[in-house]
Amino acid sequence: MKDSDRPIGIFDSGLGGLTVFKELRSLLPGEDLIYFGDTARVPYGTKSAEAVLAFSKEISAFLLGKKIKLLLVACNTASSLALDEIRKISPVPVLGVIKPGAESALKAAPWGGTVLVTGTSATVNSRAYSRALAGSEKKVRVTEKACPLFVPLVEEGWCTKPAALIAAREYLAPFRGKADVLILGCTHYPLLKKVISRVMGPRTKIVDSARAAALGARQELVSRGLLNRSRRGRSEFIVSDAPARFSELAYKLLGIRAGKVAVKRF
Amino acid sequence: MKDSDRPIGIFDSGLGGLTVFKELRSLLPGEDLIYFGDTARVPYGTKSAEAVLAFSKEISAFLLGKKIKLLLVACNTASSLALDEIRKISPVPVLGVIKPGAESALKAAPWGGTVLVTGTSATVNSRAYSRALAGSEKKVRVTEKACPLFVPLVEEGWCTKPAALIAAREYLAPFRGKADVLILGCTHYPLLKKVISRVMGPRTKIVDSARAAALGARQELVSRGLLNRSRRGRSEFIVSDAPARFSELAYKLLGIRAGKVAVKRF
Repeated sequence: MKDSDRPIGIFDSGLGGLTVFKELRSLLPGEDLIYFGDTARVPYGTKSAEAVLAFSKEISAFLLGKKIKLLLVACNTASSLALDEIRKISPVPVLGVIKPGAESALKAAPWGGTVLVTGTSATVNSRAYSRALAGSEKKVRVTEKACPLFVPLVEEGWCTKPAALIAAREYLAPFRGKADVLILGCTHYPLLKKVISRVMGPRTKIVDSARAAALGARQELVSRGLLNRSRRGRSEFIVSDAPARFSELAYKLLGIRAGKVAVKRF
Repeated sequence: MKDSDRPIGIFDSGLGGLTVFKELRSLLPGEDLIYFGDTARVPYGTKSAEAVLAFSKEISAFLLGKKIKLLLVACNTASSLALDEIRKISPVPVLGVIKPGAESALKAAPWGGTVLVTGTSATVNSRAYSRALAGSEKKVRVTEKACPLFVPLVEEGWCTKPAALIAAREYLAPFRGKADVLILGCTHYPLLKKVISRVMGPRTKIVDSARAAALGARQELVSRGLLNRSRRGRSEFIVSDAPARFSELAYKLLGIRAGKVAVKRF
């Protein structure tokens, strides 16, 4: 098999990474994509750095065993805490979602503007976005705010229910009108964009890393001569638990027809 | 060591089982108690029966290795799905929380009354409460309703926040005034009793299994001559991840001073 014919591996703690998968599928129609969702251990964002690191390495080794040509960590928590360690065990390029998200925010922000990073507790505690945003010539000010209930709300399919708006107000009302840019620093959060935007008000631009991460992946493949343009790519979905529920929510929330979802238990 | 001097083992998916621990500690001051919270894999309620069974057996084997004299499964999801299998591997008595909860509900219910069971998706899908309530001479009618967001709300410490009330309304408003008894069929739910009661209205009696399960455990020890009356019992807490967060929430939500919390990773 030619290197360019190999699949791309993508993983997330659950189904949030499907926002990245969807962008990737639309940008790279010729690629084979293998998506892994760690539904037995979701959520990652309230767990310790050690646990997230151990889970991420286990999944990466599993996907590397599938002869992938690129590994995309489509989970902000895992990208914040495990990217360097995954790179140590990976013979292929490993991309995360923090850098692309930070770059999108910097593009959208005015000089000296204010960027509010939202994410899981683990992502916020890691301060990975603050590091990625530091030192830019635009000299933005950065605040980070953990919103731990957003992932369970999305996993429950309640993206437009009153509870989602109330939770968004609880976390974000103090920042209304005070941020130029808000980063959706979790791949689940684009599904809550409407309520988040409503709480923040019209002045705040909302950016997410899904599109930017997918563009970065294409760029990486082009520069390494690994792009697969030859045919219609296949999509494969694997989860660590409850495949039927995954399949149902993938369709309900993102319109993705996952078909037969395989199970790999750790 | 005399058999009666041995500790009691208790486990839950996270910190909800502490509601049972607290009742047990107050009823049985002389006993040594070992509590295990599976904080690396919480929540259980949205996961498959296979996953909950595998996790429960792993934890039971770990606690049995501590030479316990009784194992109390202080998690409704694990009690619904794993009790029979745990009993197969246990040389000591294994008690769950479904039977005590069902018995409390039957005591509280009028003849021909209506019982609403609330719980995680896994507990509700197992229909364990419906089976435990069936065939009683009071001939109660049983409805079950899954409330998957209640566990994340409690684990976030939002028991009295507006989001908790809104979520309770979303799940339970259709049952307002229509149930004689509501079973809090998850050990996390007693922490949301106030908002649940507000949504259900004054006519509905709210019962939980924590007190009943603790009374059942004492009865079991008495009948087997295993009660430890000799001294002040010790409490030991072990989790599979994030001990500091567990300790903080145990105090914030239940006033339990857990002290040094140990970590056992699987």
